[in-house]
Amino acid sequence: MSGYAPVTPEIAAQLEAICGKNYVIYRDEERLEPYSRDEIPGHHYRRMPEIVVRPQTTAEVSAIMKLANVERIPVTPRGAGSGLSGGAVPVFGGIVVATDRMNQILELDKQNMMIVVEPGVIANDINEYLRPHELFYAGYPMSMETCYIGGNVAENAGGGKAIKYGVTSRYVLGLEVVLPSGEVMELGGKLLKDVTGYNLLPLMTGSEGTLGIFTKIILKVIPLPKYQYDLLALFPDSRTAIEAVPATMVESGITPTSVEYMDQESFRSACEYLNETLPYQDAGAMLLVSVDGNDPEKMADDCEALGTFLEKHGASVVYVADTPANSERIWKIRRNVAEAFSLYFPRQSGEDIVVPPASIALVVEQFQELAEKYGVTIPCYGHAGDGNLHSRVSAPDSWSDERWEETLPKILNDLYALVAQQGGRISGEHGIGCKRLAYMPSVVSETYLNVLRSIKQALDPNNIMNPGKIFMV
Amino acid sequence: MSGYAPVTPEIAAQLEAICGKNYVIYRDEERLEPYSRDEIPGHHYRRMPEIVVRPQTTAEVSAIMKLANVERIPVTPRGAGSGLSGGAVPVFGGIVVATDRMNQILELDKQNMMIVVEPGVIANDINEYLRPHELFYAGYPMSMETCYIGGNVAENAGGGKAIKYGVTSRYVLGLEVVLPSGEVMELGGKLLKDVTGYNLLPLMTGSEGTLGIFTKIILKVIPLPKYQYDLLALFPDSRTAIEAVPATMVESGITPTSVEYMDQESFRSACEYLNETLPYQDAGAMLLVSVDGNDPEKMADDCEALGTFLEKHGASVVYVADTPANSERIWKIRRNVAEAFSLYFPRQSGEDIVVPPASIALVVEQFQELAEKYGVTIPCYGHAGDGNLHSRVSAPDSWSDERWEETLPKILNDLYALVAQQGGRISGEHGIGCKRLAYMPSVVSETYLNVLRSIKQALDPNNIMNPGKIFMV
Repeated sequence: MSGYAPVTPEIAAQLEAICGKNYVIYRDEERLEPYSRDEIPGHHYRRMPEIVVRPQTTAEVSAIMKLANVERIPVTPRGAGSGLSGGAVPVFGGIVVATDRMNQILELDKQNMMIVVEPGVIANDINEYLRPHELFYAGYPMSMETCYIGGNVAENAGGGKAIKYGVTSRYVLGLEVVLPSGEVMELGGKLLKDVTGYNLLPLMTGSEGTLGIFTKIILKVIPLPKYQYDLLALFPDSRTAIEAVPATMVESGITPTSVEYMDQESFRSACEYLNETLPYQDAGAMLLVSVDGNDPEKMADDCEALGTFLEKHGASVVYVADTPANSERIWKIRRNVAEAFSLYFPRQSGEDIVVPPASIALVVEQFQELAEKYGVTIPCYGHAGDGNLHSRVSAPDSWSDERWEETLPKILNDLYALVAQQGGRISGEHGIGCKRLAYMPSVVSETYLNVLRSIKQALDPNNIMNPGKIFMV
Repeated sequence: MSGYAPVTPEIAAQLEAICGKNYVIYRDEERLEPYSRDEIPGHHYRRMPEIVVRPQTTAEVSAIMKLANVERIPVTPRGAGSGLSGGAVPVFGGIVVATDRMNQILELDKQNMMIVVEPGVIANDINEYLRPHELFYAGYPMSMETCYIGGNVAENAGGGKAIKYGVTSRYVLGLEVVLPSGEVMELGGKLLKDVTGYNLLPLMTGSEGTLGIFTKIILKVIPLPKYQYDLLALFPDSRTAIEAVPATMVESGITPTSVEYMDQESFRSACEYLNETLPYQDAGAMLLVSVDGNDPEKMADDCEALGTFLEKHGASVVYVADTPANSERIWKIRRNVAEAFSLYFPRQSGEDIVVPPASIALVVEQFQELAEKYGVTIPCYGHAGDGNLHSRVSAPDSWSDERWEETLPKILNDLYALVAQQGGRISGEHGIGCKRLAYMPSVVSETYLNVLRSIKQALDPNNIMNPGKIFMV
């Protein structure tokens, strides 16, 4: 047993007193159900919360945490629920704290090139807000149209522009954090550098809601590049395509914004899903390579050089999208691969491995051997330029649920072992959550896990803050 | 009393057995003395170690830590001793672990654009090594010709190129860390992104040797820009110069590599120290603005635009250095300000405050009012583009040592209060060490300090790892 206390009607009444009756869901299965899951396909990673609360202020979040900490009730913070590792799933029931009502853009500080937001703001809305000011926030998760910035920070989201711009943590300059104790801690501020004490910002960023709830976020913003050009390079087969990726990164002499890889299964599924008529039938794999900047002549030169480079490395044809409409058409395909797969392959496991960039072609090849060995398919796509690959282990239609449930752990053990052999890790941007927790020892040391546990214990001695994620205490 | 055990002859013998007799200094005041201090001028922050050990391998460092942990002897890691916050000073005596013999560049991995080094490699030597490969490591601390990369990581060094390239932590992809227990922990690897567990790399980076000793470092390297052009802009007075800094960052439309500020006292001291004949007599303050890149025409355009911009913002004359020799001449002045001040002002306190970039002109003005109030001088220089200012609080020659020792804490209290009013912090890149420990509560909360203490306690329950730094446990 977990040793946690249940959410009694008395506790529920106290939570209603904190948040207001309208913002608490209790004993209502139908309205609680959407909070039992994230975007992992299937039913394996679903757990019902006992209660959902939707606070609007830091003070309310703090009061919730104080109550939960005293009463020993687990608390699971939740953003948009668009995660892919079960981070927002209330594994031990208890309280789900939904941040959807903390959705204000609080301040744009143009003099300091920073923006202050609440956790429930949709990532894309930040950029829509910034666009008229010719500024942008460089995070670009594929779920940008729905995901919350608070979730991006909790998972240290990566995305399609990380090669050039880095991941979420590079832009998080300040956080207001409600600790498991209910205390409110300010970290960082409107500062571009700061060594005044340990740097807790990147520890909190990516801690998957296990160390605190973010109630305010200060982000660095940068000048919006005036232009983005995209190249869609079609390759005869996946091997030629993926081998061109590290070459592009190291030898092309150009720093792209994105180098995205899609194998045939991936782009075909997305194109079918979107009724997209790109001449994809001819291709065995695709690379989507982008550049951005302010000098269209320079960028046109870069695109031409990249196109020639990719053709030299085996691309059969390279399309150039140099208008926002054409760019969006291509990127929409890329952004919808996950959605399409979820629809077409009900029994699948979406993986998020990361390896040294130069090893990516090797692991793609090894994954295909693994697929053959087990009689499954493992289509691959993702942010190949930084060594981060999304591999969807998918069962044939003929398999029973039992066979799938029994075989998947074996496949993942093998797959993660291949990743570990290359010095890789089991998540580049989706997080560990409850989905990958059991596999942590395959890629990290017991010493490392014990250090994580000791930090968790130091900040959350009662283990009430999103328990059952990343590691067991 | 500290409660630490002394280094007995028996302990010394065990340390000799670990490292070899030639690499241990014990009961030899003259040879121990250089390990009692860093580059803080004066004698206030000096403490003699009981013993100095110079291990060569991770296994030796691990054995030292295991012994120290069992015996409860404090251990202070030391790089080149070029720090400015007393980080390498053995406040409680005990063992100093000097990393000067762990000085190998272990591997350049060109395919992954990474370099693997030991902690005792001099920062500049990494770039000398990389230059023929047209790669570079983007850290650029002003002490680059002497400081060790291990110290850079321990302090999360900033430097002259942080505006464009970020600080040390952006480039630290992997660490081998010997924990206070003596256990060896691998963090990260040759990975550009990774969310497999808490991100401990940036927690270790900047932890000032209080959480572990780094024995191996994996750094990201990037293509070496072919050209660097520097503008030296002379202003009639410091106010005009410093007000041009945030304007340059936000309004010029160009992302410089550096925006360095030097007031009259700063550049005059450095020029005199170097016998440099720049026509500095005419200037009340200077900005050093750099751009780098691969397209000399574009950069020449940028320089011209920046020059015009700076003149519009009050620069009386702008010199352009577009050859490496001229660039080096200018940067040498900037790099030697600290050294010159140390020579000319024996009683001084070198500060390292950081504020929101838009607030920098205001604090420079307030610091001059403060100087007047106390009858001292506070010359200012530093990395103004990112809000990080080095202010040297300096006593007049007429002051007695007693008056100085008594007045300095009052000045610093006032100075840090002004910084805190702007949401700033007391160190942007030099660290807290023992020099600023007492002032931490003036800019951070007790909640934050308690979290630091709890993390320290979790990793170093016996408090033997560089105790007396950042905070008291």
